Amino acid sequence: MIGRLNHVAIAVPDLEAGIAQYRDVLGAKVSEPQDEPDHGVTVVFVELPNTKIELLYPLGDNSPIKGFLEKNASGGIHHVCYEVDDILAARDKLQASGARVLGDGEPKIGAHGKPVLFLHPKDFNGTLVELEQV
Amino acid sequence: MIGRLNHVAIAVPDLEAGIAQYRDVLGAKVSEPQDEPDHGVTVVFVELPNTKIELLYPLGDNSPIKGFLEKNASGGIHHVCYEVDDILAARDKLQASGARVLGDGEPKIGAHGKPVLFLHPKDFNGTLVELEQV
Repeated sequence: MIGRLNHVAIAVPDLEAGIAQYRDVLGAKVSEPQDEPDHGVTVVFVELPNTKIELLYPLGDNSPIKGFLEKNASGGIHHVCYEVDDILAARDKLQASGARVLGDGEPKIGAHGKPVLFLHPKDFNGTLVELEQV
Repeated sequence: MIGRLNHVAIAVPDLEAGIAQYRDVLGAKVSEPQDEPDHGVTVVFVELPNTKIELLYPLGDNSPIKGFLEKNASGGIHHVCYEVDDILAARDKLQASGARVLGDGEPKIGAHGKPVLFLHPKDFNGTLVELEQV
C-alpha cells in the first residue's frame, strides 16, 4: 500500500541557520524558503538524490509547529510522509486496524497541492505519519 | 557532500506490533528481525521503493535506545542516516563548522558493516544525524 518516502520534515528554530547547515556544510541542494500561509509554515526543501528533507519554520500565530518548537527548543524531526496511490482506501484500511486519523478524517490539500492525511502518533510508534496521494 | 537518505530509524516499544503495522496494515515489505548485539538493538528493515525505515528495538541491558524509549513510551523517530562518500572529509568539514561528533570522533563500523559517525542533535536542529560512508 505505501510507496515512496516522500519526505522527512524537520522543525527548525532558526531557518537561516538550518539552511546554512544543509547547503554550506552538508553541500546539499536547498530551495528558497516558501511561505505556506494555509499551513502555517515556511518550508525549505533539501533535495537529496532519493527523497527530500523539508525544513519547517513557523509562519503566523497559529502555526501547527509552534507548540512543537516550544517543547523541542533545538528543533526536531516532526513527521515522515509516505506516498499512497489511493488515500481513501488507505484511510479505511488504517481505521479498520484501529489507527486514528487526525482531524475529521477527510483528506485535506497539503503543502504540495495533493490530498493528505495525518495519523495519530500514539497509534504509530510515536511517529507523526503523513500520507500523501500521488 | 551528503548523498542519499539511507534510512530513517524509528524506535519501537513493541517490535511485533510495529512489524504488523508496516507489513499488514501499510502493506510494506518487512525483513525478519536481526539481532545486532554489537549495537544493542534488534532491527527490522521496512523496504520502501526509495529508502528504508529501520524499526529499532532494545537488545541487552546497555541498549542505546533504552533511555530513548523510557522518555518516549510510544516510541519515536530516533535518527536519520545520510550517505557520504568520504566520512573523514565529512567529519572534518562538520567539525570545522562547529558541529560536534559523538564519541571520540572516529568512525565506527555500523549495523550495515560500513563506517558511521553520529552528530550531536543540539548542533543539528534537534535531529540525531548518522553519516554512513558508502
